[in-house]
Amino acid sequence: MKDREFLEKIKNGSISIDEGLAYLKDYNFKDLGVAKLDFQREQRRGFPETIFCQGKDDQTLVEIFGAFYDRGQSVLGTRASLDQYKMLKEKIPNLSYNKLARIISLSFEKKDPIGKIAICTGGSADLFVAEEAALTAEFFGARVDRFYDVGVSGLHRLINKIESIRQANVIIAIAGMEGALATVIAGLVDKPIIAVPTSVGYGVSLGGISALLTMLSTCAEGISVVNIDNGYGAAYAACQINRLMEEK
Amino acid sequence: MKDREFLEKIKNGSISIDEGLAYLKDYNFKDLGVAKLDFQREQRRGFPETIFCQGKDDQTLVEIFGAFYDRGQSVLGTRASLDQYKMLKEKIPNLSYNKLARIISLSFEKKDPIGKIAICTGGSADLFVAEEAALTAEFFGARVDRFYDVGVSGLHRLINKIESIRQANVIIAIAGMEGALATVIAGLVDKPIIAVPTSVGYGVSLGGISALLTMLSTCAEGISVVNIDNGYGAAYAACQINRLMEEK
Amino acid sequence: MKDREFLEKIKNGSISIDEGLAYLKDYNFKDLGVAKLDFQREQRRGFPETIFCQGKDDQTLVEIFGAFYDRGQSVLGTRASLDQYKMLKEKIPNLSYNKLARIISLSFEKKDPIGKIAICTGGSADLFVAEEAALTAEFFGARVDRFYDVGVSGLHRLINKIESIRQANVIIAIAGMEGALATVIAGLVDKPIIAVPTSVGYGVSLGGISALLTMLSTCAEGISVVNIDNGYGAAYAACQINRLMEEK
Amino acid sequence: MKDREFLEKIKNGSISIDEGLAYLKDYNFKDLGVAKLDFQREQRRGFPETIFCQGKDDQTLVEIFGAFYDRGQSVLGTRASLDQYKMLKEKIPNLSYNKLARIISLSFEKKDPIGKIAICTGGSADLFVAEEAALTAEFFGARVDRFYDVGVSGLHRLINKIESIRQANVIIAIAGMEGALATVIAGLVDKPIIAVPTSVGYGVSLGGISALLTMLSTCAEGISVVNIDNGYGAAYAACQINRLMEEK
Amino acid sequence: MKDREFLEKIKNGSISIDEGLAYLKDYNFKDLGVAKLDFQREQRRGFPETIFCQGKDDQTLVEIFGAFYDRGQSVLGTRASLDQYKMLKEKIPNLSYNKLARIISLSFEKKDPIGKIAICTGGSADLFVAEEAALTAEFFGARVDRFYDVGVSGLHRLINKIESIRQANVIIAIAGMEGALATVIAGLVDKPIIAVPTSVGYGVSLGGISALLTMLSTCAEGISVVNIDNGYGAAYAACQINRLMEEK
Amino acid sequence: MKDREFLEKIKNGSISIDEGLAYLKDYNFKDLGVAKLDFQREQRRGFPETIFCQGKDDQTLVEIFGAFYDRGQSVLGTRASLDQYKMLKEKIPNLSYNKLARIISLSFEKKDPIGKIAICTGGSADLFVAEEAALTAEFFGARVDRFYDVGVSGLHRLINKIESIRQANVIIAIAGMEGALATVIAGLVDKPIIAVPTSVGYGVSLGGISALLTMLSTCAEGISVVNIDNGYGAAYAACQINRLMEEK
Amino acid sequence: MKDREFLEKIKNGSISIDEGLAYLKDYNFKDLGVAKLDFQREQRRGFPETIFCQGKDDQTLVEIFGAFYDRGQSVLGTRASLDQYKMLKEKIPNLSYNKLARIISLSFEKKDPIGKIAICTGGSADLFVAEEAALTAEFFGARVDRFYDVGVSGLHRLINKIESIRQANVIIAIAGMEGALATVIAGLVDKPIIAVPTSVGYGVSLGGISALLTMLSTCAEGISVVNIDNGYGAAYAACQINRLMEEK
Amino acid sequence: MKDREFLEKIKNGSISIDEGLAYLKDYNFKDLGVAKLDFQREQRRGFPETIFCQGKDDQTLVEIFGAFYDRGQSVLGTRASLDQYKMLKEKIPNLSYNKLARIISLSFEKKDPIGKIAICTGGSADLFVAEEAALTAEFFGARVDRFYDVGVSGLHRLINKIESIRQANVIIAIAGMEGALATVIAGLVDKPIIAVPTSVGYGVSLGGISALLTMLSTCAEGISVVNIDNGYGAAYAACQINRLMEEK
Repeated sequence: MKDREFLEKIKNGSISIDEGLAYLKDYNFKDLGVAKLDFQREQRRGFPETIFCQGKDDQTLVEIFGAFYDRGQSVLGTRASLDQYKMLKEKIPNLSYNKLARIISLSFEKKDPIGKIAICTGGSADLFVAEEAALTAEFFGARVDRFYDVGVSGLHRLINKIESIRQANVIIAIAGMEGALATVIAGLVDKPIIAVPTSVGYGVSLGGISALLTMLSTCAEGISVVNIDNGYGAAYAACQINRLMEEK
Repeated sequence: MKDREFLEKIKNGSISIDEGLAYLKDYNFKDLGVAKLDFQREQRRGFPETIFCQGKDDQTLVEIFGAFYDRGQSVLGTRASLDQYKMLKEKIPNLSYNKLARIISLSFEKKDPIGKIAICTGGSADLFVAEEAALTAEFFGARVDRFYDVGVSGLHRLINKIESIRQANVIIAIAGMEGALATVIAGLVDKPIIAVPTSVGYGVSLGGISALLTMLSTCAEGISVVNIDNGYGAAYAACQINRLMEEK
Repeated sequence: MKDREFLEKIKNGSISIDEGLAYLKDYNFKDLGVAKLDFQREQRRGFPETIFCQGKDDQTLVEIFGAFYDRGQSVLGTRASLDQYKMLKEKIPNLSYNKLARIISLSFEKKDPIGKIAICTGGSADLFVAEEAALTAEFFGARVDRFYDVGVSGLHRLINKIESIRQANVIIAIAGMEGALATVIAGLVDKPIIAVPTSVGYGVSLGGISALLTMLSTCAEGISVVNIDNGYGAAYAACQINRLMEEK
Repeated sequence: MKDREFLEKIKNGSISIDEGLAYLKDYNFKDLGVAKLDFQREQRRGFPETIFCQGKDDQTLVEIFGAFYDRGQSVLGTRASLDQYKMLKEKIPNLSYNKLARIISLSFEKKDPIGKIAICTGGSADLFVAEEAALTAEFFGARVDRFYDVGVSGLHRLINKIESIRQANVIIAIAGMEGALATVIAGLVDKPIIAVPTSVGYGVSLGGISALLTMLSTCAEGISVVNIDNGYGAAYAACQINRLMEEK
Repeated sequence: MKDREFLEKIKNGSISIDEGLAYLKDYNFKDLGVAKLDFQREQRRGFPETIFCQGKDDQTLVEIFGAFYDRGQSVLGTRASLDQYKMLKEKIPNLSYNKLARIISLSFEKKDPIGKIAICTGGSADLFVAEEAALTAEFFGARVDRFYDVGVSGLHRLINKIESIRQANVIIAIAGMEGALATVIAGLVDKPIIAVPTSVGYGVSLGGISALLTMLSTCAEGISVVNIDNGYGAAYAACQINRLMEEK
Repeated sequence: MKDREFLEKIKNGSISIDEGLAYLKDYNFKDLGVAKLDFQREQRRGFPETIFCQGKDDQTLVEIFGAFYDRGQSVLGTRASLDQYKMLKEKIPNLSYNKLARIISLSFEKKDPIGKIAICTGGSADLFVAEEAALTAEFFGARVDRFYDVGVSGLHRLINKIESIRQANVIIAIAGMEGALATVIAGLVDKPIIAVPTSVGYGVSLGGISALLTMLSTCAEGISVVNIDNGYGAAYAACQINRLMEEK
Repeated sequence: MKDREFLEKIKNGSISIDEGLAYLKDYNFKDLGVAKLDFQREQRRGFPETIFCQGKDDQTLVEIFGAFYDRGQSVLGTRASLDQYKMLKEKIPNLSYNKLARIISLSFEKKDPIGKIAICTGGSADLFVAEEAALTAEFFGARVDRFYDVGVSGLHRLINKIESIRQANVIIAIAGMEGALATVIAGLVDKPIIAVPTSVGYGVSLGGISALLTMLSTCAEGISVVNIDNGYGAAYAACQINRLMEEK
Repeated sequence: MKDREFLEKIKNGSISIDEGLAYLKDYNFKDLGVAKLDFQREQRRGFPETIFCQGKDDQTLVEIFGAFYDRGQSVLGTRASLDQYKMLKEKIPNLSYNKLARIISLSFEKKDPIGKIAICTGGSADLFVAEEAALTAEFFGARVDRFYDVGVSGLHRLINKIESIRQANVIIAIAGMEGALATVIAGLVDKPIIAVPTSVGYGVSLGGISALLTMLSTCAEGISVVNIDNGYGAAYAACQINRLMEEK
């Protein structure tokens, strides 16, 4: 519920004064004790609140998602296990879940997607990160174009798609193992690139550290990097840029 | 020299056919043997070529900067020592140098700066990185606003400046030691943030690794990260975003 | 049993001379072979003995907790699994257990809590560490005030609570991921801060190493640090300070 | 100058209204551009401001120390080279310097030291850290007792001094190489211990990382740790505790 | 079977010439394809062969232990799981197993133990390593004296036992977490110490790396170190020294 | 199907023009969306395509292997679990599997093996890597000679086999723990050596890092190294050399 | 001097029997005390001996190079400083030196180069490694083709040269920073590639570790790797392959 | 001066009662303030005291060496620079110095060396460590046999010397780079081996870490390890074993 909506409901009586007082008590954040929920976030930052689900216990999750549901606010849950989703689904309506991306979403309004974000992966084992990025970006209102398995060991696959990739406002380049994808794309296009190292690989891939170092020490320009497997964070940063470019 | 300029000079005879043939021979890149210079870069990527000077021997540097000078193309030299600059200056006109930023620049045209990039530092020891970023961004045509020494251990200094910081299209957050600056800014503004860890500190700062890990593992959204002390790379990425937003 | 109590019981005959000799045989420590129990610890150090349960086999645990029970001395078991607790509970009366904090406690006397320790966490995933700290501090006789989910990416939550935090004698700041909480609190209060990095996070969080480095390389003063996830150790150090300040 | 002093001088005319307005302009912090000086710090945090000198250029240092001198406020400079001190001394009166501790101090008032802090080192190569801690603690008003070269490879040296060490309100334990000093002291005394790993050693000492890990993974209680070679930070934390215990 | 025994059996006909030829075919080593067994090892190195069981598949283990059994040679299996033992026991007689130490042994002759090796541990969680060392040393013919849970955080426990520890020819010091035990013992005794870091601990213990660094960077003399959790290797080295001292 | 075969079938009508058009549509690569298959690889690089199975979901694997089967092209699947094989086997004919090597193969033509590659291992726990290398090399058409368990702690086993090893065109040296095998072989033979560190070991073996560092920092010449446990990569590189030497 | 030459000189009396005995005394190796020189190496391994000069003291170097000179055997000195060369040159004739490659060479016979090795670098700062490789390969008798500054951030430079690179028997790919060069070349050619990470870069380049990890964790086939900056080792391995292919 | 000598001098009056009282005041250790000297060490541990000189300031060194000189006790100074020696030599008589080993020695009595310690190095660049070990062992009274440059890349050099090495009571194996020397020796001899990794090498040698890991993760038995470059520590441990074996 946006501020205007709230005030109009007060004015026309669809929310009573007492209900309004209860609502304002949690205006800045609702203090659940174990968590403090930020209901103003969409107004302040432009995107709905996100909950990092991994490691949170069931009761905390129920309280958090329930509070957003009660208030009619959209919310995204990342790194959510299937078990967490099943548990939540029994108590809170309208949740949806994507297993590969490990994302729970609760969405109250649907808008037309804006701009374009290109999401590229080096291999087909990087999909769990790519889909986390893609679903996040779509939840935040961006149009997404997927270019999967275009890694640098077979350059013709990437060259074949490069014209389409150039159409995007911003590019998310996702790769594990040696992580050279972002560097090669940066040499071919002229748009900001958010690089995401993945934990795909073994041995000296070191759970993504190798790809991370590659991306940070790149000799190509225009690349900035987020945490290993952090498809969500890359999508957030890309959506900020995408939105600013469309809003101008 | 842009392509149009070249062709018009051929047409009007100010460049002869033979001169034109020599020019076209190096059209894609000029092969110096030890280096291959990319003259089309400004046309292809929108920003002039940059030379990483550290570790290059004198003769190579003279050949590189000389070739750009001869062709009338702007070029930026990063991580250049004072000695390298002095050596070059004797042979090539019009170079300028900033010692703190370790930047050599050769600039053939001056345009009005566009947009706005905010450059913030945690402390006053981070200036060598901040100035590398600032001078690069200005060389690439962006307007720059500096906010130095606004680190999180004295929050009132940052809060005091936050309204000005919010005016920028994109923010570069530079910090060493524990590197928490980017996280705190991200909680207060709504613009893309490029974070630069610096090697300032000692002991577990590990030459910037500590600040790097902080910035990558941040719980705040909208932050992407470049290599330690890489003011140049942060400025390049910021200028891409700044330009796209202004061009729209 | 304190020394005075022992001697008075000898004097009034409620403990026989032979019982007293057996008691004195284990006065310094009781040698179980696989473990040597320190019964004088509460007298010497002011807090009861603690047993690190992780990795100990069942028989050893039974012998240890049994020996404390037989002697009427309080003891705390940390990092105890639910299975270990269930196994022990069948053999030794009066044990209690907290699953989140993984703490077993055997307590023979209850005193009024003294002073005040503030326990703050960056997020709601840090609770397992925070509760280990809180229950330890309460077991050792301190009053505890909890401030959970006040992380720096939403500063208004922390600012909202800062006056209450300032009331404490000592502050425990617990955070995973980038671990900037301690630094920000240190800029706002004037009390000793014990910082605890947690293993919450993924990728470059490196199981808590990232938060640890942040806390150690902080540019803010008044922060000292304990091992990753070591809620117990932070509580012990905080209780020492809290007690000394109250005893003065 | 404390607030009361300022206001009384305004009242009695020894500061004019115009001078007072200039003074208030910098009340929160003075913005030097490259640095923002925090003049309220002593009032807010109880100890004077400290300047980390390493890596700062000469002009910045002159502006900073000059501003404190002009305002009559004490200030401590850490990690200052002899060259920095000599440069500053020519421009600003009343500075003093300790070469081993690398400390510059500017002190406007002298009070009687309070409480007691024990500073122990494992070896005689750790003195540069110990003296940084000792001079800082003395600058901040604490009484300091030094116990140098009492490392654990010759336990009788430590045992011989342990009664004196126990008299302190708080203990700073400084050691390089394997860094076991803090653990052994913690088993013998009942006071808070701030442990400082030093970079003394070679090979697997890894510039202090080995001692740091030892101190953090200790099995003894009551120890918290600061950054490698951070004598200043240990002293600050110790002074907080020492002052609170004396003020009660 | 020793060489002399073999030749005498040939001479007196209890082994036929053909059997003798088959025996000599494998004299240097028996080539099983996947493994090459060293039957001369006891003669060459003085101790029976040892098999590292972890990661070997069942059939290979059966062939290896079977070959030693057939030839009447003793053999020790380290890091053997209970399942591996059960599988082997069904096919090969006379094996025995210790679950804590994860050791399988096949022993054909029993001699009186010689000399004395002291095995000390910091805590009671280090027993799995200590017992691997103790059983290995006993298998190789040494007398073993156990001193468990004598860690440095309660020095009186170690001091209490130090006279007995001094009686040994060589000392094995086993500790996890901060691993300071070896250093403190080295300051109190005058015998060679083999230090074994263990993986006991959490957080910065880093699976034993912290204790390993402590032991290697010790300021005390007379300590040499083996791999993390390598009770077997420590016992082997100690037995070499113990035997040489007794044989002289 | 090779190009010639395709064109001849078109010519003689056994493939219709429409079938031919469909075939040519995927000529460069077939775009499955989640993966892009490279059918020209055998023609371009001389060896069939390989699929890294680990982490790929079932549907993707079925599409990939099915596409190769449909086109009559051989393909190798590495790091395939038994479950993946069972799932695939139900849908695609003619697959075979080796559990130790974790290899699935689909092979349409059988040629006589050429040249010789020697595969040596330090111990019998390295077999899973050695067999991955051996099966890959045989699939790619090389003759393989196995020398297992010839590690340097019992040099006579290696010396005994060295003449046979010298017969190979190229040697693959596989070892875990301290990984010294490659160095010692390099001192004894005169052929290129591809070294493979394995994850066999514990403690400071660090999952193969220790062996990797050994192999890279060797003082012996003629050794180059691949990733930890990368039997496949070593075999590929060895097959390239073996083939070139035989083709000359 | 080859064996045949030696024996023929004995036969024809140009070497006396006594001289021959002295010669044979050092036949296997000459024991200088501090070093043991391997004169048979060229016969046994096919390439002359090499001396790693870094860290050796002057007297040792003089003895070593002098012994080779006296015996008329070629020898290569790697990682030699200019000072070492100047010192040696005064005492031993016929030495030559390349400063960029840090190579001293003493060469007694000149043969026509055979085969072809392509040496590629990512940038022009990698030349010191590339020239070490090139000079070593030429000293060992190979033909060398140089392709410098063909890094992946400007793919057209590499594509432009790829046909020439494909002509080589073996390719040495040298790159610092993110080190992606080898991966991209491997996707375009069909020859064995020896990859050399260089220490060029800063921050997370970690002195070459980043490029090393990239090269080892590559998803492209046919790449094996040597130590950071090890141009010598790459050349040795390449020369082995090149020679075997030419000799067949 | 030994205790008996002291008491006899008191008895016969060559030391007065007052001198004796002064002597006894420092009996346990002499407290210099910055250092506490252990004069009883030779009596307690059997070897003279050793001073780690690196990082100690001049005045401290003069006090320490002077105190030993005054008391007529031998002392060894390790890691001493030439400058430190020159400074000390001007004030204290009878010091001697070895530049390669960086050892200062002050020796009051000369005994016949006992037993035998073999010191082996992999290369001739490891001599600075080997000589530190050799001189220490000789100072502590052991006979030393040197075997330098017997590394595993040329096995015949080691095999040639192996019989002499076997004669020693204990072997010190010193190697940098890949550090495989100790493993190979352990397979050939039957005596305790103290392994010393050295910092010789570059790139992944990581200043000796690579050799350290090799030595700790060895598959050969009978090896224990000391810190990188710690020739002194290896010699101390070897001397303990050597003395015990000779004294029996």
